[in-house]
Amino acid sequence: MENCNSEGRIKKIYVKSEKFPFAVGMKQVILTDTVVEGKHIANPPVNIYDTSGVFGDKDYTHDVKKGIPRLREAWHKDDTNFVQLDKFTSDYTNAQLADEELKKVAFPITYLPKKAKKGVAFTQMALAKQGIITPEMEYTAIRENLGRVDKQSYITPEFIRQEVAAGRAVIPCNPNHPEAEPMIIGSKFFVKINTNIGNSALGSSIEEEVEKSVYSAKLGGDTLMDLSTGKHIHQTREWIIRNCPVPMGTVPMYQALEKVNGNANELTWEMYRDTLIEQCEQGVDYFTIHAGLVKKLLPAIAKRLTGCVSRGGSIMAKWMKDHNEENFLYTHWDEICDILAEYDVAVSIGDGLRPGSTHDANDEAQLGELKVMGELCKRAWEKNVQVLIEGPGHVPMDKIKENMEKQIEWCHSAPFYTLGPLTTDIAPAYDHITSAIGAAMIGWFGTAMLCYVTPKEHLGLPNKEDVREGIITYKIAAHVADLAKHHPMASLRDDALSKARFEFRWIDQFNLSLDPEKAMEYYGVEKIKHTPYCTMCGPNFCAMRISREVSDKGKITE
Amino acid sequence: MENCNSEGRIKKIYVKSEKFPFAVGMKQVILTDTVVEGKHIANPPVNIYDTSGVFGDKDYTHDVKKGIPRLREAWHKDDTNFVQLDKFTSDYTNAQLADEELKKVAFPITYLPKKAKKGVAFTQMALAKQGIITPEMEYTAIRENLGRVDKQSYITPEFIRQEVAAGRAVIPCNPNHPEAEPMIIGSKFFVKINTNIGNSALGSSIEEEVEKSVYSAKLGGDTLMDLSTGKHIHQTREWIIRNCPVPMGTVPMYQALEKVNGNANELTWEMYRDTLIEQCEQGVDYFTIHAGLVKKLLPAIAKRLTGCVSRGGSIMAKWMKDHNEENFLYTHWDEICDILAEYDVAVSIGDGLRPGSTHDANDEAQLGELKVMGELCKRAWEKNVQVLIEGPGHVPMDKIKENMEKQIEWCHSAPFYTLGPLTTDIAPAYDHITSAIGAAMIGWFGTAMLCYVTPKEHLGLPNKEDVREGIITYKIAAHVADLAKHHPMASLRDDALSKARFEFRWIDQFNLSLDPEKAMEYYGVEKIKHTPYCTMCGPNFCAMRISREVSDKGKITE
Repeated sequence: MENCNSEGRIKKIYVKSEKFPFAVGMKQVILTDTVVEGKHIANPPVNIYDTSGVFGDKDYTHDVKKGIPRLREAWHKDDTNFVQLDKFTSDYTNAQLADEELKKVAFPITYLPKKAKKGVAFTQMALAKQGIITPEMEYTAIRENLGRVDKQSYITPEFIRQEVAAGRAVIPCNPNHPEAEPMIIGSKFFVKINTNIGNSALGSSIEEEVEKSVYSAKLGGDTLMDLSTGKHIHQTREWIIRNCPVPMGTVPMYQALEKVNGNANELTWEMYRDTLIEQCEQGVDYFTIHAGLVKKLLPAIAKRLTGCVSRGGSIMAKWMKDHNEENFLYTHWDEICDILAEYDVAVSIGDGLRPGSTHDANDEAQLGELKVMGELCKRAWEKNVQVLIEGPGHVPMDKIKENMEKQIEWCHSAPFYTLGPLTTDIAPAYDHITSAIGAAMIGWFGTAMLCYVTPKEHLGLPNKEDVREGIITYKIAAHVADLAKHHPMASLRDDALSKARFEFRWIDQFNLSLDPEKAMEYYGVEKIKHTPYCTMCGPNFCAMRISREVSDKGKITE
Repeated sequence: MENCNSEGRIKKIYVKSEKFPFAVGMKQVILTDTVVEGKHIANPPVNIYDTSGVFGDKDYTHDVKKGIPRLREAWHKDDTNFVQLDKFTSDYTNAQLADEELKKVAFPITYLPKKAKKGVAFTQMALAKQGIITPEMEYTAIRENLGRVDKQSYITPEFIRQEVAAGRAVIPCNPNHPEAEPMIIGSKFFVKINTNIGNSALGSSIEEEVEKSVYSAKLGGDTLMDLSTGKHIHQTREWIIRNCPVPMGTVPMYQALEKVNGNANELTWEMYRDTLIEQCEQGVDYFTIHAGLVKKLLPAIAKRLTGCVSRGGSIMAKWMKDHNEENFLYTHWDEICDILAEYDVAVSIGDGLRPGSTHDANDEAQLGELKVMGELCKRAWEKNVQVLIEGPGHVPMDKIKENMEKQIEWCHSAPFYTLGPLTTDIAPAYDHITSAIGAAMIGWFGTAMLCYVTPKEHLGLPNKEDVREGIITYKIAAHVADLAKHHPMASLRDDALSKARFEFRWIDQFNLSLDPEKAMEYYGVEKIKHTPYCTMCGPNFCAMRISREVSDKGKITE
């Protein structure tokens, strides 16, 4: 297939900061002229939010063994908030590094980790509370405004600082993942999407996972979670992080469970703690931690149609039942937050009791956990840890709004990060769609980030084509939410595309679309140049052609 | 690929009417037992609304040249409301039948049309107003209740009569299309979906269109519109109708325009009138007629970003402009209704000014036309013609509710029949998804029928795979709307599937799903029998398996 961008009309541009020594990358679509009765009228270029990082630079040559450039390292070279460690702190990491056998599968590490100087609160939230606008805040401000300097927008660096200080927005940016471009998650900004990848005991290799992660960033995934549960979790993660231009999250419990060979009742706080440090020092930007599923909620699980469908949640539930003790993530919450604050790793408080069927939506178990999550959120903020709150799950449309309202109230406006929600249970193989409906709605109501769902949800591990389908579907959900909530930059692209469509500027229409390649493939490459009617209708039935005549708008020149 | 129904667990059953000599077909999924610790517990079968007609009978052999059985003919054998004509009334029909050359492409007709006896009002609406429960009303009552006789449901035949009498529901059932099974369109019932097929000047054959129409009914299309604009429109339609178990609609203007070789200004009322009669006598069940786009609304088109994107609408707009006269569909509205009443053809008042971009949503042009449509609706009801109101189009999520509310108010609760709406313009190749989001929401708010959109929307004619993708996506939108509006039968299927999922009864899960073949293909046929965990996670990470343990629900026996 010919490249849609054959005329070089999709470019990567860099918008310079006036305050900091960096420029923010974004896509720019250069439009063709409108030609009416032979007269040319220029159309302004359209900037598009871009997550591809260096992969979007046409001259960039990627070497997976070297990783991508460490963008943010230079920004903090002389930053006195940090200390440079002279070795890794985690016992597990050091054991892995010492193992000769594992060197064959390991990324060739050339760095040592950083952490906060003792007694210094350096997270984005801590600095925001002190009134400091960080480079990361400036960066996200330029990104959210799509580089417009003549901006009427409310999204100033100062506004971002206020949102981060209040906990209403999160900038996940562990200094040990300097490859990631800063981005912001909060209800006042573009709705973001997260993609999940990860191998399992049943298949897929490190190479495949790295390839999927790069693919995800190129297509528009704002963040990425590595949910690997199979072999070589530590090494897989290292490869992904070193090649990942977007913030990366994990569920540390998965690795903890692997360390005890899947026996949940052998899990200990000490081992989990070491896993946190291991991952903080690798550069994970946010952790899902199922600390809200406390012991008193266990009886509510038995009342459900589909019990507990969260992996992390069910592991903790089993541990509590086997030990007859409180969730150790809950009892060690302050200690967890102290560790996370040292590396500015955000916490995404996991909803272990998210409903696994529309039947269980908004029930006692789900809402009971949400209340606990709100308490944990406040405690994390006291330690300047940035917080996301995870949400459902399977929820019929009429119960979505209640979810959002209760989350805002009980979790003090911390950003909501939801999986869908799926609005019905009856469409396995189409759950990207059942969930995009719910995702769009909850995004409109205020959810800040949507965790994508692929067509393989409930059925198997997604392949590359599934990842594409999931990402584009979620870019749609996020964008329609942006439109509905009137993000100041959202409708520019729709209007430019619709104008192109009405004027039969097919190249512009495709370049402005979410998936130019697929749109062009469906339309037919050979027809792209000059066809002043749609292929569905033929010339006599082309409403847009006739409509121009009716409105005396002049004939589009071929 | 092995058939998912390999164990014969998806059956077609027939539920007998107590009052009329017929039985209503529906699907029944026979579930396997739940087996906990070796103990068997039966799960009741689940009935599913079915649109496949005779194509769902496993013993049925289809001969496209004979057409499918004329189901409703026997019901009205002695019906004194009808007269049997001894020849076709339309000049055009008679000319086509006389043309030797056309016999090669014509369906071998063996019937002559019926119409109302002079002075008799026999439409479903007319009879409903007289307090008569017709066989068609009884049939739809059994269908909507999924055959449950122990029903707590409000959907009784008498309730249906009331809804039809008030114009809040439509049963499209031209007696000249007795092959179609009666179905009901109204906000109190299952949300229905319409599929569009049709050749254009640019491609596709009669065979392909008939194949697509049969495929549509098998997959779950509730009604079907033939939007052909290419060669042999009359003959294509005949083939489709004679093989179509669901009500069929058209836009008669398309054929009228073909008759004048695409020159809109040569259109005349006389020729359009003959086209209506031609199609009434072939058996079309509902007509889209763009009578609401009146002359005073033309200036509003020029103010839009994307003008008028309706084919029928733009044709009439051009005609009005060229002739400087009022829309002849508007000026001849009473006469149109008189014709439609004679054949009980429903009118679907077309929205010629539906917005073609999110920018134009809910604007002066769109809402101005909606008001006129409301007036036309009332006048049609006075003549006992059943009415649907067509709706947008491209509408961002935050403007959808207003659409529905205004339609209910201005169009007196006549059933709303919408195309999507598409919630963004930027995703060509994914407009089945951009529109499913809007369709689900507007269905919840009260829209009775959703016109499907395929991935090829804006790009080309859909092929068979696109039709499948469009239909399943719209079955999802309709179903999630049913769930959200609490249709009494809607959640049964979700709950049964979720229970099966939680108990690892994979066969039941797939048989209950909207597209069993695709779900099974993704899961992997070889694993279907006994795998008490999901392939995404592997046994140690299976939340559902662990969750059963936590709740002491007993182990599912393999």
